[in-house]
Amino acid sequence: MKQESHLEATPGTVRPGGRTAKVRAAVLEATREALATEGFHALNMDRIAAAAEVGRTTVYRRWASPTGLIADLLRDMADRSVPASDTGTLEGDLRENATLVVTTLTDPRMGPVFRAVIAAAACDDECADALRGFYGTRLRTWATAVDRAAARGEAPPGTDPVEVVRAVSAPLYYRFAVSHEPLTTADAERAVAAALAATRAGVFAPGSD
Amino acid sequence: MKQESHLEATPGTVRPGGRTAKVRAAVLEATREALATEGFHALNMDRIAAAAEVGRTTVYRRWASPTGLIADLLRDMADRSVPASDTGTLEGDLRENATLVVTTLTDPRMGPVFRAVIAAAACDDECADALRGFYGTRLRTWATAVDRAAARGEAPPGTDPVEVVRAVSAPLYYRFAVSHEPLTTADAERAVAAALAATRAGVFAPGSD
Repeated sequence: MKQESHLEATPGTVRPGGRTAKVRAAVLEATREALATEGFHALNMDRIAAAAEVGRTTVYRRWASPTGLIADLLRDMADRSVPASDTGTLEGDLRENATLVVTTLTDPRMGPVFRAVIAAAACDDECADALRGFYGTRLRTWATAVDRAAARGEAPPGTDPVEVVRAVSAPLYYRFAVSHEPLTTADAERAVAAALAATRAGVFAPGSD
Repeated sequence: MKQESHLEATPGTVRPGGRTAKVRAAVLEATREALATEGFHALNMDRIAAAAEVGRTTVYRRWASPTGLIADLLRDMADRSVPASDTGTLEGDLRENATLVVTTLTDPRMGPVFRAVIAAAACDDECADALRGFYGTRLRTWATAVDRAAARGEAPPGTDPVEVVRAVSAPLYYRFAVSHEPLTTADAERAVAAALAATRAGVFAPGSD
């Protein structure tokens, strides 16, 4: 019984399809919807419980706070991370990644969710840890494309694959979350070209020069 | 008289050293201090007025809201932007810029202020506009170093100087504000090397290839 209650208190560790998983799915979907439409500041546990049709005490007991909801949403998003593209070339794979970032951040529904989780992470340590975990998963997932490219000789030996992927994402997120400049497919192309040039010059292969 | 009241309502347009300027300086310093120690969420107009030793009605009348205070702080920071370095080489100037970014973001006092303004910009349009203005000023200021380098032949003709400076800042801000990863001088060096490689490859000179 102790084990059971431990599992209940740790969302994501129970079997999919069970009641706990259904409650979590409904609450996280309501959280995502609230972040998309109202932003981080308006996030309210009672309204999330009502929208998810879950008891308030369950929501408070399991997630404790609005930032607890956001942190768990980020853990769920990390778990659902899709595999990296495999187009056959490094440039093709990096372009798919950059396009995915731009498409997501400019999506009328997902853009506000990312804005909200970035704001939450700036205000709350649990959210910052969860966001670090989300991007860690995402960077490692796409790093496999760079590893494949290095094996084909498209990147210098010793290239740090995560640095290559981070170099693609960084200028796009800088516009989105820091300088609040428009984000277009031209920015995606430029990010890919810059990351490729730096990769080929050995910038991400420490000690290669 | 209409003109006078317009000037009073637009901080920064009055002569330095006047009473309006002194009130603004005290209120913005109290705002910066509150953001450094308590973050964006705890920002409270009454406490700012008390800390600045300025009447509450003055603070409410001039800045209207906590986000109004942050937006005006950002306009003030943009106005105080210091000139770019001039070391004689593009690499030297970009390194000075990257070091300044890392030093600022990892500073125990300024780091939390930047975290707070980035969070505020994610939640509030006026803050987003002000943050865009701040980084616009900062990027244009450092772009002069790239223009000088291009005139010396250190960058291909037609290089967009703002893109070069943005390429240096982006991976540093990505770690700070998005992925919440540690930020070190090694990251500054890598950002400079990557921006230089992309510049030399003509990535930031559209139509040059």
